[in-house]
Amino acid sequence: MKQVAAIIGGGVIGGGWAARFLLMGWDVRLFDPDPEAARKMGEVLDNARRSMPGLFDVALPPEGVLSFHETLAEAIDGAAWVQESVPERLDIKRRTYAEVQKHIDPEAVIGSSTSGFKPSELQEGAKDPTQIVVAHPFNPVYLLPLVELVPGDNYDPRAVAWAKTVLTGIGCYPLHLKKEIDAHVADRFLEAVWREALWLVRDGIASTEEIDNAIRYGFGIRWAQMGLFETYRVAGGEAGMKHFIAQFGPALKWPWTKLMDVPDLTDELINQIAGQSDAQSGSYSIRELERIRDNNLVAMMRALKGQNWGAGALLNEADSARDALAHSADEITDPGQPITTVNRAVPLDWTDYNGHMNEARYLQAFGDATDRFMELIGCDADYIASGGSYFTAETHIRHLDEVRAGARIAVRTRCLMGASKKMHLWHEMYEDGRLLATGEHMLIHVSLETRKPSPPAPQIEERLMRFAQAQADLPIPQGAGRAVGQGR
Amino acid sequence: MKQVAAIIGGGVIGGGWAARFLLMGWDVRLFDPDPEAARKMGEVLDNARRSMPGLFDVALPPEGVLSFHETLAEAIDGAAWVQESVPERLDIKRRTYAEVQKHIDPEAVIGSSTSGFKPSELQEGAKDPTQIVVAHPFNPVYLLPLVELVPGDNYDPRAVAWAKTVLTGIGCYPLHLKKEIDAHVADRFLEAVWREALWLVRDGIASTEEIDNAIRYGFGIRWAQMGLFETYRVAGGEAGMKHFIAQFGPALKWPWTKLMDVPDLTDELINQIAGQSDAQSGSYSIRELERIRDNNLVAMMRALKGQNWGAGALLNEADSARDALAHSADEITDPGQPITTVNRAVPLDWTDYNGHMNEARYLQAFGDATDRFMELIGCDADYIASGGSYFTAETHIRHLDEVRAGARIAVRTRCLMGASKKMHLWHEMYEDGRLLATGEHMLIHVSLETRKPSPPAPQIEERLMRFAQAQADLPIPQGAGRAVGQGR
Repeated sequence: MKQVAAIIGGGVIGGGWAARFLLMGWDVRLFDPDPEAARKMGEVLDNARRSMPGLFDVALPPEGVLSFHETLAEAIDGAAWVQESVPERLDIKRRTYAEVQKHIDPEAVIGSSTSGFKPSELQEGAKDPTQIVVAHPFNPVYLLPLVELVPGDNYDPRAVAWAKTVLTGIGCYPLHLKKEIDAHVADRFLEAVWREALWLVRDGIASTEEIDNAIRYGFGIRWAQMGLFETYRVAGGEAGMKHFIAQFGPALKWPWTKLMDVPDLTDELINQIAGQSDAQSGSYSIRELERIRDNNLVAMMRALKGQNWGAGALLNEADSARDALAHSADEITDPGQPITTVNRAVPLDWTDYNGHMNEARYLQAFGDATDRFMELIGCDADYIASGGSYFTAETHIRHLDEVRAGARIAVRTRCLMGASKKMHLWHEMYEDGRLLATGEHMLIHVSLETRKPSPPAPQIEERLMRFAQAQADLPIPQGAGRAVGQGR
Repeated sequence: MKQVAAIIGGGVIGGGWAARFLLMGWDVRLFDPDPEAARKMGEVLDNARRSMPGLFDVALPPEGVLSFHETLAEAIDGAAWVQESVPERLDIKRRTYAEVQKHIDPEAVIGSSTSGFKPSELQEGAKDPTQIVVAHPFNPVYLLPLVELVPGDNYDPRAVAWAKTVLTGIGCYPLHLKKEIDAHVADRFLEAVWREALWLVRDGIASTEEIDNAIRYGFGIRWAQMGLFETYRVAGGEAGMKHFIAQFGPALKWPWTKLMDVPDLTDELINQIAGQSDAQSGSYSIRELERIRDNNLVAMMRALKGQNWGAGALLNEADSARDALAHSADEITDPGQPITTVNRAVPLDWTDYNGHMNEARYLQAFGDATDRFMELIGCDADYIASGGSYFTAETHIRHLDEVRAGARIAVRTRCLMGASKKMHLWHEMYEDGRLLATGEHMLIHVSLETRKPSPPAPQIEERLMRFAQAQADLPIPQGAGRAVGQGR
């Protein structure tokens, strides 16, 4: 059964939530009195559709249905999750909860996107305070996994459990804070840095661009993968964390920040910042910057995925959760027919200067297809750790048609021959019914110790031969056995 | 002529400087009285050698020579750059400069790695104050490009120009701060975040791991590519930077940070942090964490390189500077012989679970070789922008031998046939004399408007045919025209 989320308040944050729920297969009911709400939502959804599906190596479920509603009561009808992203004013938020709680399913949870308020402040005066939790996301909501989940001191464990299930299910990382505090955790850091940055601009120490460069060419890249403490643990080296604190500790008392002072946001300072920002980034429109940002985030998160670390490890976990389904589906498929071994969206970072998927990424997708087929015959991570694997000896690719970022591609795999050390595979890549490419591959089983050809374990060979025999009567695929430039 | 850098003080920072200079082709003379200096330097250099060369798509120059010296005077002999990374004590630093300035080449510059002191503090009492500048790097120095360059109020423009030349030449980004301030720019931000993080741990709001996750799953990834102001410019949307400041401004006065208060570094707090850090990261040794960090940084910086943005754009600039040389070298090579089209190190993120370069990366390297050959016949970015390009129609790869991360690979390219719309290329990939793989490719010239085959511009076809004719008498390469699994 389709699950339903109600999104109260569109805009950049609410729209980002809506896009994430939709692309993860939820139906979304949106309430926002702004007459521009549909246009704004469409723009966020465009950005999300081009960037988010390709983060994963397994296709997302079919997109849910988006609907717009005139009243709060109508929007929350049937919702298992209500996400509130109305303006940062306590009176508005409390009025919204009062109205929502007249109609809401008692099992549903109301998550607030507030960046500053504590849950106890939101809950005050509510009919069912424990139904309201802070679920604070980070922009762009459809890409960044962090959600600060703060239920407050007086919470309902079932609501927290449901919140974690929902948030994890849509690819988020719920960071459950056990104690409430103003602005939660991340925005306290952002606030500290923002205040210091205002001083540096005001005092003419550095421009906005120089400050951005000081971040993105240095500690920004470090923090994208390890954060603060683990980075310092490494920097401290063998001497350890205590030694590091002892070294860095005294600096806390030195005048390295402006501390208590808050710069006055005079017109002069605001103009100074806006002018520097124009000089730095003004050659791009906001829409262009959004897309550049999303391209960068996708490329970096996929890079971390390859390392199975940080935000990339979260993506791999999400893939595994979905992949288990695909796997069991494979197992009931007729082994006498080609097997679907890849089912995914083309990521943003797989395209090149010609505007289409780069040739090397075809081989990456075919390599993933080969890996999946290897798993199906039992050559999985455990087997590889035991010292055997298949290496590709030879590959022939025919590029028959182009494909662009965001397209859903599938690879169907045949075993042309499998016996002794050899495995001869044939992959066909499709976008819907359109054949994009074929890949013909000869693999050899090797010993990872000697790096030389060696026979596979009997159970591997047995399963391989079972596939080969079951598919032996299929017609030879068109294009198999062909050399480069050879006519038909 | 080889250039010489003197590194005063080994350790993590000094060793990182030494590794960067060495891998960029400078000779390095190191002075460090620590009896463990050679071992420590060796460990940093191991890390740098495995991670840094593969950041780039063009091979680095031959590594310089590292030597250890007993005295400061000996170490700085012939040095065009002296980098001081001694402990963070003003008296030690000033004594070091006094000794260095007895012997140093007056044209050389002394860069200090100090994270806290202002240049005026370092320069006080020096024989030639303007020779001393702050050149503050970020760990790991061999990967992160940022160097805060602070010459102070009374500076010598020639020294600053030389500092920029040297730092840019070794792949750094010198951020020239026009005014001095305690702790420069980046460490002021780190300090503000560190202080706040200590409070959050002490007050039991979040553990070290939760804080790290709050950073690396959210704003850390954003900051790796855009920094603070550009990120907020995008978040502000069409309403612009002024609107954003007006919205976020009032929060400055709210109690979102602990501000002036500095937590006491009691034994209890230190133990709490060290214990939480052990629980978070203790399953890895520091050495393992260093390598994980470097793998992550390389993968993300290369991801940004693919987007030509942030730290990745700096890498592309560095490649271009080196590539210009390779290009002119190509032009004097005999066009009747195979042409070197790729000369690079295998990046850390090109290897897979089998411990060797992944099959798709062979095609990536061959694709780069094809791109270079296309440039040589005039099919460059300008030509592609005018609406023509070559698409690969067919590829045949023979994987003949393995190669591991860090290895230097070269691709030599032959034009087997080039006429009308067709271009038939043959690539051979080598590590030294060892043949790793061959790639046979048929490309078709297309109109980027119709996406259909079309004749190339006359000047392109003419240059293509010139190569094809010059190489027509070479013997047919072994393995050409072969289908998958076909015997010789």
